[in-house]
Amino acid sequence: MTETPQNAKVVFQPSGRRGTFPVGTPLLDAARSLGVYVESVCGGRGICGRCQVTVSEGQFAKENVISSAEHLEGATEAETRYATLRKLPEDRRLSCQAKILGDLVVDIPTDAQTNRQVVRKRAEAKQIEADSAISLVSVSIDEPDMETPRGDIDRLRDALIAATGLADLVFDPALLPGVQVMLRKANWNVTAAIHQDLGTLPTLIALWPGEKKAVYGLAVDIGSTTIAAHLCNLQNGRTVSSAGTSNPQIRFGEDLMSRVSYVQMNPAKLPDLTKAVREAVNALVGKLVGDVGADRSDVLDATFVGNPVMHHLFLGIDPVELGGAPFALAASDAMNLVARDLDLELNPGARVYMLPCIAGHVGADAAAATLSESPYSHDEITLLVDVGTNAEIVLGNKDRLLAASSPTGPAFEGAEISSGQRAAPGAIERIRIDKETLEPRFKVIGVDEWSDEEGFAEKIDSVGVTGICGSGIIEAVAEMFLAGLITEDGVINGNMAARTTRIRSQGRTFSYSIAEDGVEISILQTDIRAIQLAKGALYAGVKLLQDKLGTYHLDRIRLAGAFGSYIDPKYAMILGLIPDCSLEGVTGVGNAAGTGARMALLNRGYRREIEQTVRDIEKIETALEPKFQEHFVNAMALPNKADSFPHLRSAVELPEPLQTSSPETGTGERRRRRRRG
Amino acid sequence: MTETPQNAKVVFQPSGRRGTFPVGTPLLDAARSLGVYVESVCGGRGICGRCQVTVSEGQFAKENVISSAEHLEGATEAETRYATLRKLPEDRRLSCQAKILGDLVVDIPTDAQTNRQVVRKRAEAKQIEADSAISLVSVSIDEPDMETPRGDIDRLRDALIAATGLADLVFDPALLPGVQVMLRKANWNVTAAIHQDLGTLPTLIALWPGEKKAVYGLAVDIGSTTIAAHLCNLQNGRTVSSAGTSNPQIRFGEDLMSRVSYVQMNPAKLPDLTKAVREAVNALVGKLVGDVGADRSDVLDATFVGNPVMHHLFLGIDPVELGGAPFALAASDAMNLVARDLDLELNPGARVYMLPCIAGHVGADAAAATLSESPYSHDEITLLVDVGTNAEIVLGNKDRLLAASSPTGPAFEGAEISSGQRAAPGAIERIRIDKETLEPRFKVIGVDEWSDEEGFAEKIDSVGVTGICGSGIIEAVAEMFLAGLITEDGVINGNMAARTTRIRSQGRTFSYSIAEDGVEISILQTDIRAIQLAKGALYAGVKLLQDKLGTYHLDRIRLAGAFGSYIDPKYAMILGLIPDCSLEGVTGVGNAAGTGARMALLNRGYRREIEQTVRDIEKIETALEPKFQEHFVNAMALPNKADSFPHLRSAVELPEPLQTSSPETGTGERRRRRRRG
Repeated sequence: MTETPQNAKVVFQPSGRRGTFPVGTPLLDAARSLGVYVESVCGGRGICGRCQVTVSEGQFAKENVISSAEHLEGATEAETRYATLRKLPEDRRLSCQAKILGDLVVDIPTDAQTNRQVVRKRAEAKQIEADSAISLVSVSIDEPDMETPRGDIDRLRDALIAATGLADLVFDPALLPGVQVMLRKANWNVTAAIHQDLGTLPTLIALWPGEKKAVYGLAVDIGSTTIAAHLCNLQNGRTVSSAGTSNPQIRFGEDLMSRVSYVQMNPAKLPDLTKAVREAVNALVGKLVGDVGADRSDVLDATFVGNPVMHHLFLGIDPVELGGAPFALAASDAMNLVARDLDLELNPGARVYMLPCIAGHVGADAAAATLSESPYSHDEITLLVDVGTNAEIVLGNKDRLLAASSPTGPAFEGAEISSGQRAAPGAIERIRIDKETLEPRFKVIGVDEWSDEEGFAEKIDSVGVTGICGSGIIEAVAEMFLAGLITEDGVINGNMAARTTRIRSQGRTFSYSIAEDGVEISILQTDIRAIQLAKGALYAGVKLLQDKLGTYHLDRIRLAGAFGSYIDPKYAMILGLIPDCSLEGVTGVGNAAGTGARMALLNRGYRREIEQTVRDIEKIETALEPKFQEHFVNAMALPNKADSFPHLRSAVELPEPLQTSSPETGTGERRRRRRRG
Repeated sequence: MTETPQNAKVVFQPSGRRGTFPVGTPLLDAARSLGVYVESVCGGRGICGRCQVTVSEGQFAKENVISSAEHLEGATEAETRYATLRKLPEDRRLSCQAKILGDLVVDIPTDAQTNRQVVRKRAEAKQIEADSAISLVSVSIDEPDMETPRGDIDRLRDALIAATGLADLVFDPALLPGVQVMLRKANWNVTAAIHQDLGTLPTLIALWPGEKKAVYGLAVDIGSTTIAAHLCNLQNGRTVSSAGTSNPQIRFGEDLMSRVSYVQMNPAKLPDLTKAVREAVNALVGKLVGDVGADRSDVLDATFVGNPVMHHLFLGIDPVELGGAPFALAASDAMNLVARDLDLELNPGARVYMLPCIAGHVGADAAAATLSESPYSHDEITLLVDVGTNAEIVLGNKDRLLAASSPTGPAFEGAEISSGQRAAPGAIERIRIDKETLEPRFKVIGVDEWSDEEGFAEKIDSVGVTGICGSGIIEAVAEMFLAGLITEDGVINGNMAARTTRIRSQGRTFSYSIAEDGVEISILQTDIRAIQLAKGALYAGVKLLQDKLGTYHLDRIRLAGAFGSYIDPKYAMILGLIPDCSLEGVTGVGNAAGTGARMALLNRGYRREIEQTVRDIEKIETALEPKFQEHFVNAMALPNKADSFPHLRSAVELPEPLQTSSPETGTGERRRRRRRG
């Protein structure tokens, strides 16, 4: 017999979605099971603070729920820590920490992630001066008159031309069916939205009766894994809401190339992939406008960035040409399109600006990241790297800018690694190896303490150690190298088995065991090879661009994307993933592509800036460069066979080169990898 | 106790509408009570033959009906006569004659009304110099290249800009999904169609591999009764095929105002009216391209004209504002639109040019007729009249041009006339009355001989004399006036009964009998009144414009439209339908609106010409003019109470005025008629 209820009803606002959950379920899990979007980037560790919610207290007759803040379990240690450090408002809870005890009505505040993003993302703090393609003009127009029987929309157009001086103003024909009712309802006083941008005529695209205060734009980064969207006020340039969702195309293929193959095998299914991404964007828009109490019809402009395959699939273009040389894009230049032609559920007159693609493997996302970091505006030489399964590389300064891509493969995302997994609770994300004892200690996503700290043992039980994520594998290989467990050629040194039982024979090669309670987590020789191939490809691409630029000096390295934000620059450099540079010059820049999309949305000057930059940028096709292979072979070594890494050596003591004669380092394995999305 | 059922179930196909009706109900009445459109113009007299139906025999389980042809009463005398004269197929019945005896499933064949109609709209022979909005450019483009990874369509655009000098060339995004396959199939040699017109950017709209020879345009005149379309070669300006069809909107209302009312009562049905006309256009296009062995995708541009209600319904705009003062148009100016946005099945990139409307009752059809006749280019003063149920009037010369409409009603089309019918075989179209014997002789559509000529008697049997059409009624009234059978006030002179038995008493008024073999065809006093009201309204509108212009001198009168082409100018003038003018100056100009549509299709100079003309033209709203009523009252007389018609009098001997005091000429009847479509 139990006296406390085993289940509780939870209603999420503003969506109104509801469900019944076992007592003890974390609120975040409940939200996700209902498809209610709550942002969380720390893997539910109570760190990022994006999953904030409030409890609406009282009796909700319609919902048949009596909701109380006490129906959530008290704050966990992590939540208390967050509240102390970041000043969590009293009525707020972290939904990843708060467990359901009884019936609840939960509200997801709109400001949580937005406010927080300013703190977290450097680019978010960047104030974008608004000069969007949309301007609002309020006019009064003459009533119709039998003496001068001009059409209602023509008199409206005349009034707008008089008010704006735009003699070549046209109107979107989508306005025709509704214009008469609108003008009469408005008593002939309306606010008009006019779209003006290069390559289009100034166009009246939307109308409201009377005064219209706020109109919005949408900036979207379509990644192969995640779609991130920002809603921005087009007049003051502020980002008012952000949201992300998985790219539903993932069911057609996990990486880009598998999606291209899917379309190649099933050409009739192309519309399904296009529809999937457009529907996901439409769902995000619903959430974003709901967050701020706006309407879809308040969204008048949108910018989209993505890699070339995402860009083409979004536009309904078969990406098959991108699957093989010469990797021909159907369209590369920036485009102004009409949102309804793309089935986007915004204002019927809304426009879309597609940022330009740089090359067949260097997409509009790289262009947007370039816009965000603007290496072309600086004297300093910047290397901008967006590490995905394809690394997109931009190098240069205001005098000259080069771009290339390099096929790194998915190893950096934890794929092709024996114990690899995506960054999620249970994944080892950081690791240190004692040079004397050769014992590892590590940090797991979901547990604050390192594995050798007090409290870890108790807490790890609820999370488990399930694998090793991208940043973990980087640190593991680098630390093994620093500890002398692997040679500069990347071979696990079997001789070290004499010093530690963690080095174990695996037939012709050896492994290093990190954890063995429950799941056995080891670094195998093949794991190190996968990392070497990936970092070798990336480094070789960078080196090629440095050859072209004629200098190996670097002032700044900017690591974009999720992976770039979470890896430790020092370990990336020890591994030789990035070239030598002052460590202070290396920073993660988060979702730089999304920032670039917002810049292009909010200010047309940035559109012209990136269009000109993409025209000027020198595109290097690494596959065509004879030196790529040589750079690649050198870059297989840790950190590099040819390059000396003076900045790194002044900061970190690297082991003396120790030659091995293992056949594993033979050139047979140094093959060019096939391109992966 | 009754043995025969008192009610019967009737199902109409293809609509599936069904109802239960008392035995003895004429099938046509049953159809109408269910809102099933069955055409009929003879007033249910079994003459026009348009109301044909077939009975589907058998057991209809779904409908729970056993249908048999025997469930219709046998043929009436009228139906037997029609069947003999016009060869009614065996399975066909005239629904106005056939009475319901039992359960029925009735099918309304689609060919009945269309075949029967004399589509009098045809392309005129006028040679139009081609300078269309479409130009063809053949280019070779560079193959894609990894060194310069520009999009395929962007390289194509560059090549076209180089070939044409059109720096601001854009492309239709509809080309994107197919461009890569097209370019490869074409081995990089393509012909591009570029659209250039005012108010749009030059746009690449279509592509073909290799050379493309012939591309076409479509010129369409959407009349309320008939849609006429011409297919023209855009390069040499030749009209290669023409076709016409009934406007299927007729089932929503026979005239314009009844369609406006229909939409007002059933706003949700607006899309049905729009869809009906667009589908009819698409069907015509299929026929036209089939005629010349072309494909729909060869059609790249289209022009449309129509009265304001047709114009709005075609564009999907609710015409309700056109139903009452101030008759506000949603849009009046010329427009460049995209054909696919109007659901037109042409090339996916095809464009549409809508000619401008002049005023709420003076449509793009009047603008096109004005373009065709170009009174604004001449010193001579021209009166251009398009007589429909609304007369559209344009008056002036190169110094000044005025336009108005006048609500003539449908009398000129044979409606509201007791023996009236549309122009079709069997209709009396010409008539002469001997001034001595007062005997009529006449000509019937479908028989070459006059009724008093040899051979008429034999031939008329196959056609019959079924009614009197618009041109016939004009001549009948005018000839009655010349023969002294009616006074200048339009009263049938009962005293003439002493001289001919054809003048017969009809209670307080009299009638004149024209034919009485089979169907009795007479002119009643009410018929003359209907004609007087119609011609009075038209003349008053013209007179008002003459007042405004400040001169009553006329060099040319141009009668446009089907009616204008078939009436004899002399009789029109005797009736006082048109003002006095040298008879040689009066000509019918056929489907001038269609000609104007073709001109605007084939030469952009004409687009600018009519846009400027419509801007400059002075629009007179007759309803606002105090003198309209005075002109109208004077114009009720034959030919006119106030105006002397010197040119007419020098050519024709008019009877001396003969005053009557009949109360029928009282002003009560001279009321302003409500506008009719």
